[in-house]
Amino acid sequence: MDSTIPQSLTAAKTAAVDAFTTSPLLTDLYQLNMIQAYLDHGDAGTAVFELFVRSLPPRRGFLLAAGLHQALDFFENLRFSAADIAWLRSTGRFNKNLFDYLGDFRFTGDVHAIAEGTAFFASEPILRVTAPLPQAQLVESRLINILHFQSLIASKAARCILAAPNKLLVDFGMRRAHGAEAALFAARASYLAGFAGTATVLAGQAFGIPLYGTMAHSFIEAQDDEAKAFEIFARARPDNVVLLLDTYDTEAAAQKVVALAPRLKALGIAIRGVRLDSGDLSALAKSVRAILDRGGLPDVTIFASGGLDEDRLADLAQAHAPIDGFGIGTSLTTSSDVPAIDFVYKLQEYNDIPRRKRSEKKATWPGRKQVWRRYDNKGVMAGDRIALERDSLRAATDGSAAAGEEPLLHCVMRNGRRLMPSPSLDEIRRRARQQLEGLPEPLRQLHADATYPVEVGDDLIKLAAEVDRRLRQS
Amino acid sequence: MDSTIPQSLTAAKTAAVDAFTTSPLLTDLYQLNMIQAYLDHGDAGTAVFELFVRSLPPRRGFLLAAGLHQALDFFENLRFSAADIAWLRSTGRFNKNLFDYLGDFRFTGDVHAIAEGTAFFASEPILRVTAPLPQAQLVESRLINILHFQSLIASKAARCILAAPNKLLVDFGMRRAHGAEAALFAARASYLAGFAGTATVLAGQAFGIPLYGTMAHSFIEAQDDEAKAFEIFARARPDNVVLLLDTYDTEAAAQKVVALAPRLKALGIAIRGVRLDSGDLSALAKSVRAILDRGGLPDVTIFASGGLDEDRLADLAQAHAPIDGFGIGTSLTTSSDVPAIDFVYKLQEYNDIPRRKRSEKKATWPGRKQVWRRYDNKGVMAGDRIALERDSLRAATDGSAAAGEEPLLHCVMRNGRRLMPSPSLDEIRRRARQQLEGLPEPLRQLHADATYPVEVGDDLIKLAAEVDRRLRQS
Repeated sequence: MDSTIPQSLTAAKTAAVDAFTTSPLLTDLYQLNMIQAYLDHGDAGTAVFELFVRSLPPRRGFLLAAGLHQALDFFENLRFSAADIAWLRSTGRFNKNLFDYLGDFRFTGDVHAIAEGTAFFASEPILRVTAPLPQAQLVESRLINILHFQSLIASKAARCILAAPNKLLVDFGMRRAHGAEAALFAARASYLAGFAGTATVLAGQAFGIPLYGTMAHSFIEAQDDEAKAFEIFARARPDNVVLLLDTYDTEAAAQKVVALAPRLKALGIAIRGVRLDSGDLSALAKSVRAILDRGGLPDVTIFASGGLDEDRLADLAQAHAPIDGFGIGTSLTTSSDVPAIDFVYKLQEYNDIPRRKRSEKKATWPGRKQVWRRYDNKGVMAGDRIALERDSLRAATDGSAAAGEEPLLHCVMRNGRRLMPSPSLDEIRRRARQQLEGLPEPLRQLHADATYPVEVGDDLIKLAAEVDRRLRQS
Repeated sequence: MDSTIPQSLTAAKTAAVDAFTTSPLLTDLYQLNMIQAYLDHGDAGTAVFELFVRSLPPRRGFLLAAGLHQALDFFENLRFSAADIAWLRSTGRFNKNLFDYLGDFRFTGDVHAIAEGTAFFASEPILRVTAPLPQAQLVESRLINILHFQSLIASKAARCILAAPNKLLVDFGMRRAHGAEAALFAARASYLAGFAGTATVLAGQAFGIPLYGTMAHSFIEAQDDEAKAFEIFARARPDNVVLLLDTYDTEAAAQKVVALAPRLKALGIAIRGVRLDSGDLSALAKSVRAILDRGGLPDVTIFASGGLDEDRLADLAQAHAPIDGFGIGTSLTTSSDVPAIDFVYKLQEYNDIPRRKRSEKKATWPGRKQVWRRYDNKGVMAGDRIALERDSLRAATDGSAAAGEEPLLHCVMRNGRRLMPSPSLDEIRRRARQQLEGLPEPLRQLHADATYPVEVGDDLIKLAAEVDRRLRQS
């Protein structure tokens, strides 16, 4: 369970992160269809799209924003190679003006966003793109793909943190994450939400996240004797001796650990911990704790894994199970109870005219918006207000903004260039911790019945009515 | 909704597929810990691991195997670069013998597997690795990561196919898939299960999968007038005119399509279809069908999307909704009702001695196994039998195998090299279609109550008892 990681591996990190840059063809075909039509018709005016969640899924009282860093990388690196263009040409679908446009493509728009690690709620824009229409359209699919997944996992991880606030939590879910990128992004998102680290080695290299890992059952089985397997592992990994107890009989294995400890001690090797991976974890942790304590090993920690999620963590806390840390696998990296959230990216303004769709249950609020958050005198979040940005700006400058209200959206990219380097993962992690500490108590419960107050400003309601009037007249 | 795709794009395909080759550091730390211990202790004997599903998840009467092609690519391409080794060295965790071993690493093992597109059930090994212990251990995490996800999605897609057998089904789920690789692999897995194609452009390039795509609401909203938006799109995409009707009022939009059709016809442009994306799809499809038919457009097809899954498809079929095709998004690419399955990879033999773990609810059957499938006289699957491979071999050669039994596992890689090229995606797709046609009727229902008979051979039960006896004596 050693988490020592080297610092200043900037070069190696950059190389690995570059591997996430995917082909610009990772998009939906309809984006290219529409861009062809925009180009043919000369629709290159300024468009404003906002990304938000239509409604919170079941069992989620809040969400935690994550993935902005990779989204900005995506904007900065979006290029079509000659091979990409040649392939598109070979499909026989598009015209020369599209190939010329894509060959020269650079994202030149502005991006406003809420910071990674910030709690957010339904209908609140977490990112806004202001760019020529074809550019703003082209980025949609991958932008959602990046922000949806990381926010999904950060939100799930936050629930684990709230369920087991003083425990060491580690991402063990690479193998059943949905592919390579999901495994890496899940490690990042859970770490920024407050996990101690991950088992995924590449996430250590790519993001500098602390790494944790023990041994598997196969290691024990491959030896003819469990005690011998423990000793071989301890000699090979003297700084990181965490022994897996449940291959055959957990309590018998704990006795073997007690018997082994003095011999290892004579070699200068300390057993740091044991791991339980099956059975009644609460009962086993108590009996193993007793065996270890009686055997003179009170400092050996107990780590548990195996089908855990935030509900099991809460149960184990309630049962006062003497477990020091947990490996959370599949439920974390797939957000298994809520594997997707209704993230959408919608046109709110084009050519300075506010726009909205009115599809059943999918209507949107038009215009460029800001989210204002206010806090009570203890620093607890008291309510949000979604308002038109022009109004927000006026309010901020003429002093009419409510005292203590803070705007959540900030300009992070101008003309396709980041305004400043992204915050470090540890800075984002600190922000997430503050946000979780500032949540109203009802939202900190796993079964959030309470709804956080999010007010839609009068200006927005009025503007939506104006847009509807215009649409009726057209 | 044009699905024309160019053939013979081999060069472009290969380049894109290479992009899936991920760093060898995409693994769990404990694999490296164990390899260090295996090297130190000289444990390099032959290990046999099998990959299987412990139990079928709720609402899944069968699973469909997918991802073998990428798994074999992974085995063949697994290399540690000098930079990978340098980074591992910089962590201060490992010893020189590990760096030397990884620097020279090549996978030299044998692989037996069931073919992609084959239906399988709980406890049946779908892949077996026979290799020196450290090699067989190292591949575990990524191997599960690849086969789990593609089989998960192929199985979900198969349910959609069974629910809407004569409809055009298209993968629309890139944006909420869990990252880039999930989007691509989901397109592949759903296509091999029988989907007509995908909206994900890169999947067209990488795998030659037919591409489908229409237009988004933003396209309509960006124009000041819906009818004008339809016309602009039709002129820009004359071979692929599918118009989105639900931005404001679906039936009014259908009337605009009828009004527009003669003018487009005069330009030589035919409207191919319309898309519905919200509201009561069954009722709207009926009224839109009536409007189109009355308007002289009986050949214009209706395509529906928006929050669909296999249950909604079944409801729409039951309601005789006149819908010709469906875009299935998030529910497909996240397998939203079952976002993970209990795929495991377990040591079954080491140094010619059968092994098993006996952890509570996680005990395994030891030894190298074969799965035998038998069919009834109509070609419907009648039952499977899991037996020790040595027994199967003898049975096959001495004539004692049950008549009509077919072995599912075949050797696909010997000494780290594929025995033959992977079958094409269309060959796999044909196999999947045959498998779905050969499922017993109860398993073809969305709510499968029936259980397919999978028998565990007497030889296996006897061997497990022998292993237990040996473990008690040790």
